Amino acid sequence: MSGGSEIEQLIELMAKLPGLGPRSARRAALTLVKKRERMLLPLSQAMAVVAQSVRHCNTCGNLATAEECDICTDPRRDRSVLCVVADVSDLWALERAAVYRGRYHVLGGLLSALDGVTPESLGMPKLTARIPAEGIEEVILALPASIDGQTTAHVVADHLEPTGVQLTALARGVPIGGELDYLDDGTLGAALSARQRFG
Amino acid sequence: MSGGSEIEQLIELMAKLPGLGPRSARRAALTLVKKRERMLLPLSQAMAVVAQSVRHCNTCGNLATAEECDICTDPRRDRSVLCVVADVSDLWALERAAVYRGRYHVLGGLLSALDGVTPESLGMPKLTARIPAEGIEEVILALPASIDGQTTAHVVADHLEPTGVQLTALARGVPIGGELDYLDDGTLGAALSARQRFG
Repeated sequence: MSGGSEIEQLIELMAKLPGLGPRSARRAALTLVKKRERMLLPLSQAMAVVAQSVRHCNTCGNLATAEECDICTDPRRDRSVLCVVADVSDLWALERAAVYRGRYHVLGGLLSALDGVTPESLGMPKLTARIPAEGIEEVILALPASIDGQTTAHVVADHLEPTGVQLTALARGVPIGGELDYLDDGTLGAALSARQRFG
Repeated sequence: MSGGSEIEQLIELMAKLPGLGPRSARRAALTLVKKRERMLLPLSQAMAVVAQSVRHCNTCGNLATAEECDICTDPRRDRSVLCVVADVSDLWALERAAVYRGRYHVLGGLLSALDGVTPESLGMPKLTARIPAEGIEEVILALPASIDGQTTAHVVADHLEPTGVQLTALARGVPIGGELDYLDDGTLGAALSARQRFG
């Protein structure tokens, strides 16, 4: 490789990004060098700005540029419903779908005995405290349908039970556009046992 | 989406990188925010350093941090052979293979009537001038086996003919590990007509 250790270091760092490997990092770095004014400088600057200004919302754990995030401070959001998600990316997915008007609680991960993630490190006491403090009536568990996700959902439910809040979870079933032939047995089973009256 | 316009702008810029789309740009931006000290700040800094220090080699067009690149100034490289490539990424590919010990000339693109790329804008006069000035005896055309690549190769050859330099091109044939069944007809034809004595 040539072009100085500067560009090699850039490539090495970019190759660590999810979705980029060594080859695509090289290609991306070359594109950046070619588009110095339009991409390299703005991107460097945007990263510096994010590093300086973006933090976690004190209330829900979402990304924010102030003490509280845009959703927590939005008076139009329904304060009686709370949706528990594992990660900010899940919150973004729900926001893109634009189907939910309540507020969120971002756990920041899933329980994992292997990785040493305990209910405390996921901020479960903080979540429990929100229920009476904010007068929340329903908590929607929007956690991944994986083993870790469902373990976490059960532990969250155990922690919230004493508050008497109503607990719900996202429905399991056949995704829109899903071919039965390509679905796993677990999904088919869940969809069958949760079948609904038609029409 | 939430987390402030700062992160949205970062995602928008990252989504323009080759190899990243909107979804992977979101994932990459989230990873960066989570790893502020280990990734976001170093990457921002590495980009700023590259933007400030990396330029094109005056002689060959490779990336460099000085007037001339590491390859042009390396006394161990064979000065009698010149390899013409379309892009810096092709130079990198040859350097990774570590099979070539001469020097390079990076055209910075391919001839394209549609995109308005002319022999002059590819720096053909500069390439022609290098042959007598540096006492080059052989020019290896290492251009893509595409229509634009081969058009460019013919134009380069036309420009270099008056200098009397020996012109060669990369061999065409079956790639190592290539299954005949999966090869296109053009490659098979080229490999057959360039067949060599066995053993």
